[in-house]
Amino acid sequence: MIIVVKKGTKEEFIDNIKDTLLANGMTFYVLQGSSYVLIPVAGDLTTSDMGRFRSLKGVERIINISKPYFMVSKHYREKSIVDLGDGIDIGSDFTVISGPCSVESADSLDKIAAFLSGLGVKILRGGTFKMRTSPYSFQGLGENGVKILNETAGRYNMKTISEIVDVRHIDLFEQYIDIIQVGARNMMNFALLKELGKSSKPILLKRSANATIEEFLSSAEYIMAEGNENIILCERGITSFDDSTRSLVNIAAIPIIKEQTHLPVILDPSHSVGSFKYVPQVSEAAVVLGADGLIVETHYNPTNALSDGYQSLNFNHFESMYKKVLKLCEFKKENL
Amino acid sequence: MIIVVKKGTKEEFIDNIKDTLLANGMTFYVLQGSSYVLIPVAGDLTTSDMGRFRSLKGVERIINISKPYFMVSKHYREKSIVDLGDGIDIGSDFTVISGPCSVESADSLDKIAAFLSGLGVKILRGGTFKMRTSPYSFQGLGENGVKILNETAGRYNMKTISEIVDVRHIDLFEQYIDIIQVGARNMMNFALLKELGKSSKPILLKRSANATIEEFLSSAEYIMAEGNENIILCERGITSFDDSTRSLVNIAAIPIIKEQTHLPVILDPSHSVGSFKYVPQVSEAAVVLGADGLIVETHYNPTNALSDGYQSLNFNHFESMYKKVLKLCEFKKENL
Amino acid sequence: MIIVVKKGTKEEFIDNIKDTLLANGMTFYVLQGSSYVLIPVAGDLTTSDMGRFRSLKGVERIINISKPYFMVSKHYREKSIVDLGDGIDIGSDFTVISGPCSVESADSLDKIAAFLSGLGVKILRGGTFKMRTSPYSFQGLGENGVKILNETAGRYNMKTISEIVDVRHIDLFEQYIDIIQVGARNMMNFALLKELGKSSKPILLKRSANATIEEFLSSAEYIMAEGNENIILCERGITSFDDSTRSLVNIAAIPIIKEQTHLPVILDPSHSVGSFKYVPQVSEAAVVLGADGLIVETHYNPTNALSDGYQSLNFNHFESMYKKVLKLCEFKKENL
Amino acid sequence: MIIVVKKGTKEEFIDNIKDTLLANGMTFYVLQGSSYVLIPVAGDLTTSDMGRFRSLKGVERIINISKPYFMVSKHYREKSIVDLGDGIDIGSDFTVISGPCSVESADSLDKIAAFLSGLGVKILRGGTFKMRTSPYSFQGLGENGVKILNETAGRYNMKTISEIVDVRHIDLFEQYIDIIQVGARNMMNFALLKELGKSSKPILLKRSANATIEEFLSSAEYIMAEGNENIILCERGITSFDDSTRSLVNIAAIPIIKEQTHLPVILDPSHSVGSFKYVPQVSEAAVVLGADGLIVETHYNPTNALSDGYQSLNFNHFESMYKKVLKLCEFKKENL
Repeated sequence: MIIVVKKGTKEEFIDNIKDTLLANGMTFYVLQGSSYVLIPVAGDLTTSDMGRFRSLKGVERIINISKPYFMVSKHYREKSIVDLGDGIDIGSDFTVISGPCSVESADSLDKIAAFLSGLGVKILRGGTFKMRTSPYSFQGLGENGVKILNETAGRYNMKTISEIVDVRHIDLFEQYIDIIQVGARNMMNFALLKELGKSSKPILLKRSANATIEEFLSSAEYIMAEGNENIILCERGITSFDDSTRSLVNIAAIPIIKEQTHLPVILDPSHSVGSFKYVPQVSEAAVVLGADGLIVETHYNPTNALSDGYQSLNFNHFESMYKKVLKLCEFKKENL
Repeated sequence: MIIVVKKGTKEEFIDNIKDTLLANGMTFYVLQGSSYVLIPVAGDLTTSDMGRFRSLKGVERIINISKPYFMVSKHYREKSIVDLGDGIDIGSDFTVISGPCSVESADSLDKIAAFLSGLGVKILRGGTFKMRTSPYSFQGLGENGVKILNETAGRYNMKTISEIVDVRHIDLFEQYIDIIQVGARNMMNFALLKELGKSSKPILLKRSANATIEEFLSSAEYIMAEGNENIILCERGITSFDDSTRSLVNIAAIPIIKEQTHLPVILDPSHSVGSFKYVPQVSEAAVVLGADGLIVETHYNPTNALSDGYQSLNFNHFESMYKKVLKLCEFKKENL
Repeated sequence: MIIVVKKGTKEEFIDNIKDTLLANGMTFYVLQGSSYVLIPVAGDLTTSDMGRFRSLKGVERIINISKPYFMVSKHYREKSIVDLGDGIDIGSDFTVISGPCSVESADSLDKIAAFLSGLGVKILRGGTFKMRTSPYSFQGLGENGVKILNETAGRYNMKTISEIVDVRHIDLFEQYIDIIQVGARNMMNFALLKELGKSSKPILLKRSANATIEEFLSSAEYIMAEGNENIILCERGITSFDDSTRSLVNIAAIPIIKEQTHLPVILDPSHSVGSFKYVPQVSEAAVVLGADGLIVETHYNPTNALSDGYQSLNFNHFESMYKKVLKLCEFKKENL
Repeated sequence: MIIVVKKGTKEEFIDNIKDTLLANGMTFYVLQGSSYVLIPVAGDLTTSDMGRFRSLKGVERIINISKPYFMVSKHYREKSIVDLGDGIDIGSDFTVISGPCSVESADSLDKIAAFLSGLGVKILRGGTFKMRTSPYSFQGLGENGVKILNETAGRYNMKTISEIVDVRHIDLFEQYIDIIQVGARNMMNFALLKELGKSSKPILLKRSANATIEEFLSSAEYIMAEGNENIILCERGITSFDDSTRSLVNIAAIPIIKEQTHLPVILDPSHSVGSFKYVPQVSEAAVVLGADGLIVETHYNPTNALSDGYQSLNFNHFESMYKKVLKLCEFKKENL
């Protein structure tokens, strides 16, 4: 923490700042700058709220140096791989997760799972409790959807991922789902995060559309601080004035996030871009930017999907994209 | 809904669009523009997902005209007043809600309640379960805080408001709290909103820092669609590149929101501005912009507050601000 | 400037940083923090580019404390009043500037000037060279418009303001215009700013829609550094994801800007809000937030205006707004 | 254009809208929707200002369908290649432009040009008149820098590019520079754009950090409408709340821009990312996203560069990046 004090502040106010720091057991130094007095402070700041120093007389502003997270950072560990069992993990090789936006029926999901599994995809996604802006939109099949997802994936030896929207569903998800997804709109639902921190299941945490990287990692810290170290981060676009895509596709954030944390980072190109047309190119960009994988929506008939049809790939598009991405991964290993 | 089709699109594709619309029971018209073919469509779109029309061949984009909400709009009702009992309401006169950021102890809260009540403030705020970016920051007194808030307010005949962060706390809040607050970070926690829609208590819903007005009102619709019509909206600043204040103080949104909805709209100047210095001026601006009230943080010793000290008013500042705001309300009634 | 060095950085790299600082004649201190080594630095940084220190080994980041401006700050002067002659100034009392978006013809401008002057408005605005997003939109009457503005204002003893868009027009503007306006889109046209810094005419500088306050004041510094100290700042809304108004009406920035600078700060409610309906309320808010004035668009028949009709007030609206604003100014002096 | 009219608007107001449209020679239709009356309108709207229709009674809003540009769109031409002579062009193959942020001296530029030319780079960049936020930062060598750039490039048979900041420098740039660059902060300096539209030299137009794609293309239209069809677009990052990089690296905009226009689109990774560390990965991503090239800063000793040292690549970094990018281009041609 650095306390910036206005030049010309009365000595008594500076003494008061010093006394307050001493009383809190902090080490500091006072440096006379040309337009400010700088007081850099060393000490454990997680136990007290830095904000309070801002209201001391003469203080212009407080600059925070420490990060509000530790366990998710590279200071704690160099690299994490999230093991899903049966030889499947996220973090060692590039992983493509796919499936429909929503589980619509057992038949339709089977068709999609058969196709994806045939290509080599090992993790099946499918929305069951949907988060929709309007209460009048399709809200998902709920518990029934969770079971269909579980059974379908079982037939093809696939792992499952689905979004949880209610802390009271944790038991249900733990029973049937392999990776519990926290959506962008729940990234700061700390009650949910803490509860998931006690779960034995891996958590995929999506970045909120208005969260800074620091806030994103702090939310992951909420989970990890409770004991669950199996976390996958997912970048999915941010809010911006540029409305040419559904969200602003923030793929260049991937290497920056990965420099801060040991956790695997994947991209959701479907929700970022909001249009199937750009999903393949954005997915390829994620590969060269060092992402650990993708979670991408696929449907055999996107026009009739019950939600998000426009951003889902059809089977032809998915197969083409998937093969290119794998080829690019090979190329990258040897050349980039 | 308006479907914009690229000029020069083959007749068969346009026929396909028409057929799809007819099959969905929609009324439409086809207009040849200079660079586009426009197909305006009338019909109930809440039952189907407009997105799917975007993947039809030739479609350039879909323009949504209908709003995803109805009950919170002025089409449903002209004006709502939220009655809290004992002659206290929100929506008829300008209401100032105040109290500390967090309930810190019974003694400290009593001191603040005594002061506020003495001035005429009728609703006491106090955080009990706190939402903090870092898991290592002060998290609030929890259930004990809820009870302290209830008892303290009772002594001064005040109503209470506190933020709920976990759907499993609803029974507790219903028992002890008069207005249940949903924080900005839970604005899209639809599981929580639906549950609160079944509550008999008024709900104060804060706008998420990256929500559009349409998303804000859609979240209110989630509550109202379940039967709870006692909702107060609260604007509290949005995310922006301009980091001169904690959030971008979006006060000019107040008249725009009020034009769309019958619900009362209040401002949280403390969290918007993030600095006690600007709270009074921003509060006065809220009055002339037509807000129905304020929720503002007050503490007898902000420097030692356990959270958000810098944005809390001390007693002198609050009293000065409160009196000016009331005078300005009088002036406004007669002159503006 | 504070240099933040990664904990665990080799001693030789830290020595290299120290040597580089010494070689640049800077005073500094090295503080061992818990996760970082902090090196606060005092010294004149305007002569060297701080960015270069970022590429030294071990450096995590550089934190800038000094502001990139001086003459426009309160360190240089407490308060400026821009004198326009004939007893008219900006900065002592609240000033309302008005007129049409564009000068459309001598007759139409005369009608507007007669009306405004009759109410007591002393400064007439009118676009002459227009900045339009599309090259095919109305571009203004140009030199002829400048002369019409000058002649019309003369008849009513009003001062004039118009936007300059080309550095080659300075002579023309100096001859005919009393306040030369720099539009938001030219806020960083430094070649123009420097030239205007040599002018004897007051400059009204609009904030760019994506400029931070620091960038805004730095642009004003460009003018002032060349010798022209008669500058009026104008806030006109910023870019945001919230598209409910033309720009995000950033009125709460007014007291924050005024705390940094001695220059008068006015608001353009018309371009911020983009709709005549909200102009009066936003203008009143500007009064309580401490603005030094307004520049607002008025037209006798907004529907037929050649540009920006929707955001212009008609005569009735202007008169009503103007009288309320003046009353509120009186009220504020005595009560707020 | 579509006019959205509030349901329940009086017949006389709708008649008035119809009459106004007829008077302007427009074709339209009136469709009764469930919550709105929609009036889609066909007709040439560039000659009148749509805004005016917004002030007609009953009008809720106006939706613009037509784009404000034509010549830069794919309706005008499928693909443009900007020919620079001597077998060098932008648009057919992937082009890497490089050089220092600023021309610092003849010797230092020679060193850089020799290195780049040796690798096969054919276009040399170098700032001569600099745009700096602070008037006290290094402002460039000016005319002398322009001549040094010209002479140095000549020795190595390279083409040159440099940013113009003043419309009065056009003659100078036409004499000595091969591609005239318009910086992001001048993207809406329409006076400059119009003048460059009369030039015979190719123009590189950078996207402003707060411009939408539509505004970006409209600025290019300003140049093209005056007759200069040799335009290269350059994406360089946008303004955002996410301050983890200098600008928000908006690379996913590249395929979206290219879908709208026939002009070549290149990326400036240095200014987007603001840190040399991420330049290589972002550059590779630009390749797979379909960019036509890069403009990237290189310096033999970034730590001592007079400007932007931190974002410049040193020779080793550039060579490594350059070779990978070329390999990836080859891979892409055959595989993606």
